Amino acid sequence: MLIQELTRQESLELIARTHLGRLGCARGAQPYVVPFYFAYHDNCLYTFSTLGRKIEWMRVNPLVCVEADEVVNSQQWTSVIIFGRYEELPDVPEWQGERAFAHQLLAQKAAWWEPGYAKTIVNGTERSLVAVYYRIHIVEMTGHRATSH
Amino acid sequence: MLIQELTRQESLELIARTHLGRLGCARGAQPYVVPFYFAYHDNCLYTFSTLGRKIEWMRVNPLVCVEADEVVNSQQWTSVIIFGRYEELPDVPEWQGERAFAHQLLAQKAAWWEPGYAKTIVNGTERSLVAVYYRIHIVEMTGHRATSH
Repeated sequence: MLIQELTRQESLELIARTHLGRLGCARGAQPYVVPFYFAYHDNCLYTFSTLGRKIEWMRVNPLVCVEADEVVNSQQWTSVIIFGRYEELPDVPEWQGERAFAHQLLAQKAAWWEPGYAKTIVNGTERSLVAVYYRIHIVEMTGHRATSH
Repeated sequence: MLIQELTRQESLELIARTHLGRLGCARGAQPYVVPFYFAYHDNCLYTFSTLGRKIEWMRVNPLVCVEADEVVNSQQWTSVIIFGRYEELPDVPEWQGERAFAHQLLAQKAAWWEPGYAKTIVNGTERSLVAVYYRIHIVEMTGHRATSH
């Protein structure tokens, strides 16, 4: 098995292509990992979520890790790992420009984002429709590709 | 979109079926997420790795999170999240029984594990073949399924 480092451009291409990643945050010593969808723009991953554990944790500790990959099997895979910083785009007047930009970016780039506003029933209870917009600033990014020859 | 909680049995079935997950660990406030393969047995996920950042971090802080999923799109997915505890199976006489068990389990259940011993070249340098065996004890497990109807 040969493992090679990706260039920054190759890593960004995977990030832009997949849209799907896993987001890790931590409270105290306890890490927490969830799948999430995002859109990339200018060194940031943009996304949104309803309120819940991960938003609560990231508000307290903005250090996060994003992993995105294309796995064929244990010998053939590409994986990008980002150390990043959470930044919320709050629903207040001075952030409306950033929120409008995020809204537009997600509408342009992401077929998956609209359902986020759809009525969602969690264990029989309707979930809040309040969307928390946020972005992950890329602080450090590394990518690797494994091939079996 | 309807989000339903999985039963413990349904969550375990997904874990047993996928073999592939994402493992989150943390050093201080910084989380770190990597893809990994594992085999399930009796409330534990068994796997191995060569030495590297995640092993170093888990030796210091054994609190981890494992996420495994089957994602069709943003409205159709199943995801299981485990809060767990890292336990190494060290290469010392008193652990040989546990190591032999792990070895056997991985050989039985996992077609993906053999390549871990194969010669691996990382950025032109041959990687150590020393395998660190470990298991993740499941402390808490939750699973959810989203459907679009």
